[in-house]
Amino acid sequence: MHSPIVITGSFGVGNAYNGIYEHGIREHSDQIGKVGWFLLPVVAETFDGFMHDVTKFAVTSEHVVRGIDEASSDPVPEGNTGGGTGMLCHWFKGGTGSSSRLVPADQGKTYTIGALVQANYGAMRDFKVSGAPIGRLIWEEQQRLAEENPDDPKFLAQSSMLFKVKEKKDKHDGSIIIILATDAPLHPTQLRRLAKRATVGLARVGGWASNSSGDIFLAFSTANEISVQEYTATTKKVDPWMPKVHSVDMIDDQTINALFEASADAVEEAILNAVFMAESMEGNGNRIDALDLDKVKDLMSKYL
Amino acid sequence: MHSPIVITGSFGVGNAYNGIYEHGIREHSDQIGKVGWFLLPVVAETFDGFMHDVTKFAVTSEHVVRGIDEASSDPVPEGNTGGGTGMLCHWFKGGTGSSSRLVPADQGKTYTIGALVQANYGAMRDFKVSGAPIGRLIWEEQQRLAEENPDDPKFLAQSSMLFKVKEKKDKHDGSIIIILATDAPLHPTQLRRLAKRATVGLARVGGWASNSSGDIFLAFSTANEISVQEYTATTKKVDPWMPKVHSVDMIDDQTINALFEASADAVEEAILNAVFMAESMEGNGNRIDALDLDKVKDLMSKYL
Amino acid sequence: MHSPIVITGSFGVGNAYNGIYEHGIREHSDQIGKVGWFLLPVVAETFDGFMHDVTKFAVTSEHVVRGIDEASSDPVPEGNTGGGTGMLCHWFKGGTGSSSRLVPADQGKTYTIGALVQANYGAMRDFKVSGAPIGRLIWEEQQRLAEENPDDPKFLAQSSMLFKVKEKKDKHDGSIIIILATDAPLHPTQLRRLAKRATVGLARVGGWASNSSGDIFLAFSTANEISVQEYTATTKKVDPWMPKVHSVDMIDDQTINALFEASADAVEEAILNAVFMAESMEGNGNRIDALDLDKVKDLMSKYL
Amino acid sequence: MHSPIVITGSFGVGNAYNGIYEHGIREHSDQIGKVGWFLLPVVAETFDGFMHDVTKFAVTSEHVVRGIDEASSDPVPEGNTGGGTGMLCHWFKGGTGSSSRLVPADQGKTYTIGALVQANYGAMRDFKVSGAPIGRLIWEEQQRLAEENPDDPKFLAQSSMLFKVKEKKDKHDGSIIIILATDAPLHPTQLRRLAKRATVGLARVGGWASNSSGDIFLAFSTANEISVQEYTATTKKVDPWMPKVHSVDMIDDQTINALFEASADAVEEAILNAVFMAESMEGNGNRIDALDLDKVKDLMSKYL
Repeated sequence: MHSPIVITGSFGVGNAYNGIYEHGIREHSDQIGKVGWFLLPVVAETFDGFMHDVTKFAVTSEHVVRGIDEASSDPVPEGNTGGGTGMLCHWFKGGTGSSSRLVPADQGKTYTIGALVQANYGAMRDFKVSGAPIGRLIWEEQQRLAEENPDDPKFLAQSSMLFKVKEKKDKHDGSIIIILATDAPLHPTQLRRLAKRATVGLARVGGWASNSSGDIFLAFSTANEISVQEYTATTKKVDPWMPKVHSVDMIDDQTINALFEASADAVEEAILNAVFMAESMEGNGNRIDALDLDKVKDLMSKYL
Repeated sequence: MHSPIVITGSFGVGNAYNGIYEHGIREHSDQIGKVGWFLLPVVAETFDGFMHDVTKFAVTSEHVVRGIDEASSDPVPEGNTGGGTGMLCHWFKGGTGSSSRLVPADQGKTYTIGALVQANYGAMRDFKVSGAPIGRLIWEEQQRLAEENPDDPKFLAQSSMLFKVKEKKDKHDGSIIIILATDAPLHPTQLRRLAKRATVGLARVGGWASNSSGDIFLAFSTANEISVQEYTATTKKVDPWMPKVHSVDMIDDQTINALFEASADAVEEAILNAVFMAESMEGNGNRIDALDLDKVKDLMSKYL
Repeated sequence: MHSPIVITGSFGVGNAYNGIYEHGIREHSDQIGKVGWFLLPVVAETFDGFMHDVTKFAVTSEHVVRGIDEASSDPVPEGNTGGGTGMLCHWFKGGTGSSSRLVPADQGKTYTIGALVQANYGAMRDFKVSGAPIGRLIWEEQQRLAEENPDDPKFLAQSSMLFKVKEKKDKHDGSIIIILATDAPLHPTQLRRLAKRATVGLARVGGWASNSSGDIFLAFSTANEISVQEYTATTKKVDPWMPKVHSVDMIDDQTINALFEASADAVEEAILNAVFMAESMEGNGNRIDALDLDKVKDLMSKYL
Repeated sequence: MHSPIVITGSFGVGNAYNGIYEHGIREHSDQIGKVGWFLLPVVAETFDGFMHDVTKFAVTSEHVVRGIDEASSDPVPEGNTGGGTGMLCHWFKGGTGSSSRLVPADQGKTYTIGALVQANYGAMRDFKVSGAPIGRLIWEEQQRLAEENPDDPKFLAQSSMLFKVKEKKDKHDGSIIIILATDAPLHPTQLRRLAKRATVGLARVGGWASNSSGDIFLAFSTANEISVQEYTATTKKVDPWMPKVHSVDMIDDQTINALFEASADAVEEAILNAVFMAESMEGNGNRIDALDLDKVKDLMSKYL
């Protein structure tokens, strides 16, 4: 992988692809035309047509170039931000969430597992917080209130919007993108195994991968940086027919459990953060409410 | 798939394989020597070396022949039975569990999803019942009692055995086999998708697939029975070079959600049943206690 | 799959993606904003940076919309056409090639396997025609001529260009896209198996999938058309929680051999057609010669 | 992988599995009962029911234990030996074949790619030697001779046996097992890529993976030996929750091409060796002739 990872709405994929290339061309203009330069953009999407007029192609390649330029190691903004802006999660406002875990390791080292999610899936009834059926409780309350207040205009507006969400998203559930990054030296097969544990975090929050979900999990390691294009026409440093050895670090499979657990845990928290940090939003003639965190606290009290 | 599915302990695999062949030879002796007869046995295993002296190869091919002969559509015995006899689950006695779900379908039909598990994985601290952290609560209690009763011989025996389990299984966690059967007409890709939802049920109970777990999920459908060996040398009914059409039923992907949910739900319950139905057992110098169901009821009361 | 398949150069992917969406939006404007409309574009690429200044993003979304509008069932133009325009194959000019096979089937039916390739891979020394080592013979001749004519300006120009190709492509080999289409009713697992036999056709011509090759094979069937978006908000024809059966046709696996052979054969011929139909081309400061078909005829004569 | 690799006939799998365990128990008796000892046997099969009465379970676990005991680094016997004894290949007598390639590498190193095949697949008409259609030529000659000599008893016996092979194997083609071993330090994803290139060697000889073929390719590296069971209850050297780093060697993907080519080449030669070294055999009421190498030499002369 030698591309920035860009996650966006479905109709932003083309321009995100172009944007990564435009950025690459600008940065590597000295190598253009030399065969040694190549780049395969990594772009993923979830569908935000509920909150957003997809026909407008609102994301441009310039946005993406700027996004790459401004990428930093600061804390990731969460909720209605970036690709997550138009996303729903468990019929609440969803979006971008992140989380990380520190894993103590041999010889006093510490590794980090970071999770970034773009959460756009799920039904309210399935939403769980630390095992507590918060989504089901809220949904049952909404149904009861809707029956008890057939004429209250304020409630009607709110509940009719919620039942519109149900109407649409229950028929066409969305997806989730989960990116796992670590500085632990894992080889590709280990990274694939790490990514599979993301399913565990997703299942804990209430995901079960409905038919229309195109859940995408990607894990990468920043250890063992290996240039993918060491060769250039002029320097000829690498001969594809002359096997060359790198000495790299690699975690012993027998000692990998804590990283697997951290993957599941970080993903679980990142999804919760995507929902907890999102704010109510209107768009494209629809409205979606953020999860009421006071209500969550209240409901959770009995489970703790 | 045209073999019985046999699940056993690791060291029973060879004889299970032989047993399936011996049964097949007995049943199809008229076809032996004709090229038209072939069979690839389906056998899976989890490791039961904690409760059982694996060097004895206790499972013989005769056991397997008899097991196939006696297979019935009666309710599946659960707990310490069959391949599940020597298994542990979340440091409780584990074993065989099953469950099913009925799924209402179009045109008044009803489909069944059945799950059979051989549960042999997990740590006590991770065990959850409907989201409630039952395993963690019991484990914390055990640790507290161990500290409070350093000299009580009865408790000592029990706790020392539990901590021996921890010692061994925390270092070498086991695996789980999950078999999903359905009469819904699903094609192979749909069955693969169904099997993946088993992970969701497993995650709900507390599984996260530790390094040494070799979790095996298999889904099959009994609809659309297609003979795999229609051709025989004499009848020549099938010409491998002359494409022939079957008219089959197939679920529309757009309507598959309830089957996916049923898969996750049935697996979750089947694992719980494996633990709930198992009984305390001694073997190979070790002892493992069944989960105390009264304690579970007691602990669950606050979560309901 | 409910998208046109667009194959292009690497830097055309973003605009191809946009173009498929633009076409879809134009065609389905009545459904936009209804959740029932969704589309995941299918776009694939091989790299044409040798013949083409990739920084110009020459392929626009308008090209792609027009391409979809003008798609027809006429014979596919081959050689320097479409996505194949800038491609090389075995150091000859490559590009687009197609081929098909008719497969007699049960009950007097006939199925067609069609292959379309965008061939952009390989070294001259590996190129084979029906098993004859044509590429190796031509390459050895070129090397000999280069030694024998160190001062002939005409030969020098030609050979220096060829050795420039070698210089660049030997270090950075390309890829191939292979699309298989059939009217035989194959389910997804069968189509995946069909696609794997494309490797056999590729290997026969001399491909062995070098490191930088990102060989992409896709097979689809036009039988059993199943609407992927039968549900719309208004008609509610499909309930995702109510499994619904389609009666479909499906080839019996036991009778699939002729389709597998046809896949390998059609791919082999399609690659040869891509090379045989391509014409010499200059671009981006480079030149690449078409394979000399008279020479091929001459060299083949001893092998027939 | 920490098991010997045993390849055998289909009905030998169970006893091969048992044999690996019996050998392991004998060798590691000091560790039995300690959880630190575990072993997952690696066994593969192709079907030899044409030459061999499979109902006799002729391969016993004792054979396998002895085979492991007697394993050596001597040249591999080829043809009618080991698991290959009862195998057919392209309607000639097939069996076991091996081959290797030396690959010059960076810093004066040399890596070896070794291939071992158990070849039990294919039709005569598809058999090729270095691209020359030897199998087709022989098959056409046989058909012509059968027509020309309707009454010659000697020819009749031979040809009737051949047409019996055709009758059976054309309807139920077999499979091939290909094992690739290398001392090049490849990580698991690279080994998987290496194994895929075996298909290229197979295709060159004339394989195209018919429906009933269960072609099995396995690649492993002897570099970077990492103990899979470093932990034992007593020594506790490895804590599964404390990630530990190994420093390992790894080939740079950019320099892997020669290993890929060597994989394809070694497999091609190993299959040819399986056929060239096999001898005519009778068994189970059938006879299968070895390929006539003098005829091959004769036919090849025009293609060289």
